[in-house]
Amino acid sequence: MTYTLVLLRHGESEWNAKNLFTGWVDVPLSEKGTAEATRGGELLAEAGVLPDVVHTSLLRRAISTANLALDAADRHWIPVKRNWRLNERHYGALQGKDKKQIRDEFGEEQFMTWRRSYDVPPPPIEAGSEFSQDADPRYAGEPIPATECLKDVLERALPYWESDVVTDLRAGKVVLVAAHGNSLRAIIKHLDGIDDDTIAGLNVPTGIPLVYELDDDLRPTTPGGRYLDPEAAKDAIAAVANQGR
Amino acid sequence: MTYTLVLLRHGESEWNAKNLFTGWVDVPLSEKGTAEATRGGELLAEAGVLPDVVHTSLLRRAISTANLALDAADRHWIPVKRNWRLNERHYGALQGKDKKQIRDEFGEEQFMTWRRSYDVPPPPIEAGSEFSQDADPRYAGEPIPATECLKDVLERALPYWESDVVTDLRAGKVVLVAAHGNSLRAIIKHLDGIDDDTIAGLNVPTGIPLVYELDDDLRPTTPGGRYLDPEAAKDAIAAVANQGR
Repeated sequence: MTYTLVLLRHGESEWNAKNLFTGWVDVPLSEKGTAEATRGGELLAEAGVLPDVVHTSLLRRAISTANLALDAADRHWIPVKRNWRLNERHYGALQGKDKKQIRDEFGEEQFMTWRRSYDVPPPPIEAGSEFSQDADPRYAGEPIPATECLKDVLERALPYWESDVVTDLRAGKVVLVAAHGNSLRAIIKHLDGIDDDTIAGLNVPTGIPLVYELDDDLRPTTPGGRYLDPEAAKDAIAAVANQGR
Repeated sequence: MTYTLVLLRHGESEWNAKNLFTGWVDVPLSEKGTAEATRGGELLAEAGVLPDVVHTSLLRRAISTANLALDAADRHWIPVKRNWRLNERHYGALQGKDKKQIRDEFGEEQFMTWRRSYDVPPPPIEAGSEFSQDADPRYAGEPIPATECLKDVLERALPYWESDVVTDLRAGKVVLVAAHGNSLRAIIKHLDGIDDDTIAGLNVPTGIPLVYELDDDLRPTTPGGRYLDPEAAKDAIAAVANQGR
């Protein structure tokens, strides 16, 4: 008996395309991202990997990606669960800022620390500022952050992973998680037991389903899982690594 | 204390546009229907009627309508519940047939009986035929019908209304139900206490939110509720009544 988990990073957003730090700012998919999401669903259908339930973040780009992919896979009718714990990493004061500008202003080392260090978060976002989520009704009553490093993402994602995602996996359901670069990296770190340094070099491409078969201890039978379009995944991973250059 | 319920009939589907009996056949929205759904969400946002939870059928045209409308109203992140009990009336052997052709073949009286009588269903669909849903995984294990009259729809929708929709209303949530002409007519008949004959003359326009404020006994404070675009609703109701002419 194995369990099947599918991870899907949202397609390109309008701010990915503009090379801005996005975090929790709720931007829509770009036209390219819309096509990527649909293609993701076609890959699921072609592979016969048909989700029984979908978990999404509370952000539009992940929700739209799930909607489009599931529609393309004829699985639009499955149960849906949403939780802020699957959100992208909160980028603190960097939200809304241009990646290249931040790199030029603060230098390559600080830039890469903010982007990739496991446990150093960017400066916190100011409450009430343009790209803050304090007043957003979707987070009312939730202990939401003002900035996060990947370690923080892992710590807030794991409770939801255990309570909701694992429960669906144990029930034998094919589970789709439609989320973000960093919330998916956190899940992958946990699943594959990747150490704090190595995770810095792991990128997740947009719109290409990553399928894990998990054993009874919820360990991957194939470390790293398998992308449904391995060639496209390889190219896309290289492109993500070059962001901000 | 009143409760707020919003009923939203899906936008025009490709088969509405082609004048075919659709029922449980899972056709997509037309381009016009996509625009109607987005407009429905804009009407919600303009009126400040912001759903806290959405209930949909298991059919693509209602699901897409909910997705598009909620995205336009910036409420894409709310919890979602889906159930076949909100599906359109099952049109039995008429599914996939041309409305005008059926009217010409069987005559106006039989045509109107099948379309509008409260308790006379069309002939049942043949198991395994092209437009049957026997083998559809979304209905596995459910007691699904082979044909339905409006009375049947009411009888299978009410248990879900009571168990799930009423529970959300009683919790003080603004509830959006994104569904179909006949499942919404069934709910409206129940809410407004409309008799079996009168309900035949009630049409629900596509894509225009119908808002009910309900009192503590879940009776409408204004019978019939209010459409968020009353003029457009009036025109659309007239158009629906003329289908098959």
